[in-house]
Amino acid sequence: MIKAIIFDLDNTLVDFMLLKRAAVNAAVYAMIDAGLKLTPDEIRDMINNIYDSEGIEYQQVFDKLLKEALGKVDYKIMSAGIVAYRKAREAALKPYPGVLPTLIELIKMGLKLAVVSDAPSKEAWLRLSYINFHHLFDVVITYDETRERKPSPVPFNLALKELGLKADECLMIGDWAERDMVGAKSVGMKTVFARYGDTFNTVNPDSDYDINSISELTDIVKKENGITK
Amino acid sequence: MIKAIIFDLDNTLVDFMLLKRAAVNAAVYAMIDAGLKLTPDEIRDMINNIYDSEGIEYQQVFDKLLKEALGKVDYKIMSAGIVAYRKAREAALKPYPGVLPTLIELIKMGLKLAVVSDAPSKEAWLRLSYINFHHLFDVVITYDETRERKPSPVPFNLALKELGLKADECLMIGDWAERDMVGAKSVGMKTVFARYGDTFNTVNPDSDYDINSISELTDIVKKENGITK
Repeated sequence: MIKAIIFDLDNTLVDFMLLKRAAVNAAVYAMIDAGLKLTPDEIRDMINNIYDSEGIEYQQVFDKLLKEALGKVDYKIMSAGIVAYRKAREAALKPYPGVLPTLIELIKMGLKLAVVSDAPSKEAWLRLSYINFHHLFDVVITYDETRERKPSPVPFNLALKELGLKADECLMIGDWAERDMVGAKSVGMKTVFARYGDTFNTVNPDSDYDINSISELTDIVKKENGITK
Repeated sequence: MIKAIIFDLDNTLVDFMLLKRAAVNAAVYAMIDAGLKLTPDEIRDMINNIYDSEGIEYQQVFDKLLKEALGKVDYKIMSAGIVAYRKAREAALKPYPGVLPTLIELIKMGLKLAVVSDAPSKEAWLRLSYINFHHLFDVVITYDETRERKPSPVPFNLALKELGLKADECLMIGDWAERDMVGAKSVGMKTVFARYGDTFNTVNPDSDYDINSISELTDIVKKENGITK
């Protein structure tokens, strides 16, 4: 019997790619307005290179960009970029359609909810807090708790331990087949592929379910638990 | 002839005390909601003590609070506090009534505008950027440029140098008599006391002017420059 749903965070609960793109674009235009003499494409390329080398959660991206472009940090340009980035990120940081009503429905059905994310603790919790999701989850496992990334079984097993449940009592949903589906399956969980968040054009996620909307989750739980209405 | 107005930033252009209080209060309630088992007054006292010892611009205030209260950083509580703080700060970060139309009027009169602030560069520029004031000022001098605080003549003289003007061509406006008025007067500028931003119940600011609304500035400039209409 399924007693808990474990969610990946980025591109499963929230459209992380959209918010990153919206935030970076806003920052690029604001920095040009504040005096940065480069084209939007040049700035975007430099930012993408920094994210590629330092990781997508790198917080000093504008410091580094300006040091590379100007040899020093120009605080007017940097602040314009940071403010535009934050405002656009907050505007774009929304759960996918159907996420909140589905989570509430699952809670009403008596299920526990968890997150297993490879994001750093602070950034994962900030995203959950911005959308007021920090009250909904019984267990949240981020990269800092285990220092192991999916598909390692370690974060999944820690989630099971904190939930007090066995693997076959949990359903894992995520957008990244090689990490979320492979990892969850390896510890014995059933898996749901979040096709609506897929950024790799995944052909075969090798999951038990494959959904286009998160609202399909409630029917999957009913089916798994033999509830016929 | 007055050719430039030099503004203090906090409590002269923006109501810094209001925004700090609003942001801290929002964070306190959000952290309690997220599980911090202390009263609002206890948390506020701890935060105020941290600001007293580390400075009002200290950025790791919630990390330090939680280490003191819980012996470790709880990311759920910290993120709830940070998000509530940021949202409330952004909502409360507004120029005083009359500031924007007065600045535009002064620019139309042909005056240059400058800021001389004791705040750190990044924080000063972030506040200016949040309210879209970063395009309005010809010169911005913050603590990082000179590492000297008002009433030192050093930041005032740097502002004069960057403006390309003499002291008697500039009017300094600020809310802190012992820093803004004393420092500006010492280098030979005329002074305007921003009584609307006074947090010390200043009796005698020893300034050339003493105003209750920033919109009085345009008449002061006209009087100083012998413009009769």
